[in-house]
Amino acid sequence: MRIDIITCLPQLIESFIGHSILQRAQANNLVTLTLHDLKKYSQDKHGRIDDYAFGGGAGMVMTPVPLATCIEELLSENKYDEIIYMTPDGVTFNQSMANTYSLKENIMIICGHYKGIDERIRQKYVTKEISVGDFVVSGGEIPAALIADAIIRLVPRVMNDETSALTDSFQDDLLAPPVYTRPANWEGMEVPEILLSGHAAKIEDWRLQQAMERTKKRRPDLWKKYSE
Amino acid sequence: MRIDIITCLPQLIESFIGHSILQRAQANNLVTLTLHDLKKYSQDKHGRIDDYAFGGGAGMVMTPVPLATCIEELLSENKYDEIIYMTPDGVTFNQSMANTYSLKENIMIICGHYKGIDERIRQKYVTKEISVGDFVVSGGEIPAALIADAIIRLVPRVMNDETSALTDSFQDDLLAPPVYTRPANWEGMEVPEILLSGHAAKIEDWRLQQAMERTKKRRPDLWKKYSE
Repeated sequence: MRIDIITCLPQLIESFIGHSILQRAQANNLVTLTLHDLKKYSQDKHGRIDDYAFGGGAGMVMTPVPLATCIEELLSENKYDEIIYMTPDGVTFNQSMANTYSLKENIMIICGHYKGIDERIRQKYVTKEISVGDFVVSGGEIPAALIADAIIRLVPRVMNDETSALTDSFQDDLLAPPVYTRPANWEGMEVPEILLSGHAAKIEDWRLQQAMERTKKRRPDLWKKYSE
Repeated sequence: MRIDIITCLPQLIESFIGHSILQRAQANNLVTLTLHDLKKYSQDKHGRIDDYAFGGGAGMVMTPVPLATCIEELLSENKYDEIIYMTPDGVTFNQSMANTYSLKENIMIICGHYKGIDERIRQKYVTKEISVGDFVVSGGEIPAALIADAIIRLVPRVMNDETSALTDSFQDDLLAPPVYTRPANWEGMEVPEILLSGHAAKIEDWRLQQAMERTKKRRPDLWKKYSE
């Protein structure tokens, strides 16, 4: 899988690329993630990529020309399954989208910054607009890193142990059960006895019960979906 | 405002601290954000902070002792308004929470990694469990950076122009209207004429109409809330 991220602030997320799961995925040639610095596509000698909004008002808008130049260059090199724009007015990202995208070959992600990108770029190039939630952040960079992480960890062979992802929250419409590790007695707080019993089937059952209780209590919306 | 982030992988998000809005907020002494490396609180000479889960199964669990040591050290230095644990089974973060937290003094954020932290740490210390959405990522680091960004940009005087945040999506329960910048004609695609008219009141009206239409079409749930 290949993920290309277009951003005017690659520095903001470059530490994300060199570590954790992504480092392992890249080292094993399972995923290539590249940050493209939009400032290099500016026609302006100062590398400017934003301008005032037509109609006035606070906040700058990212101009169409550098974005289009960068996008066209990538399009001339690869065929993309999806050109994603990270924006709070997009479709809210979820685990099922992460599963779908983890099977794609090439994904391009455009990060907005300031007030966002010129609407015409959205109309001309973007195939999917994605939001990570009902809140606003300074730019699409951290959201892009977030969905890249969610997608990449599901790419086959990226995780050490594939069952590790299958037992996560949302994969089966249930929240994950509580987890415990040593010491069994920590400052007087004990691990539930069943987990020390060695009865694999009973432990599975306890975990399912805990996951169901937690989902019912914390996320009645998910519980409804699960129990239907 | 002071934000302390506890993580076993500070490298993953350290580039986030040195750039963009956070850099400005820190330079102006409006916000102090510190990453605390959990490995330094390990009792193990290899800096180990995780162990196998009681009851078996895939994925490691973060042990209670290093976490408790780090949390206690911070508690001895500051009084915290909230000790947040980033977890997919927490309350889904939104703009209203970002507004609330932007008025706090001291916030501690614990990032889980692997299968998460020992349940007893959650019971003993955590005052709020927050999720950034219905999907799973490798750790709480990127989610912590995400909510820190959403919160910090709302801290008074952090943004250049405060009206810039007030016209964002979600602040008024509407998605933001489309934005345009130069050139007015880009590859045959024209900016809506009204935006070039100079009639401030009419432009405001057009933007509100666009915001309402976009919300109605893309987010009927938000639209219902707005129009009630």
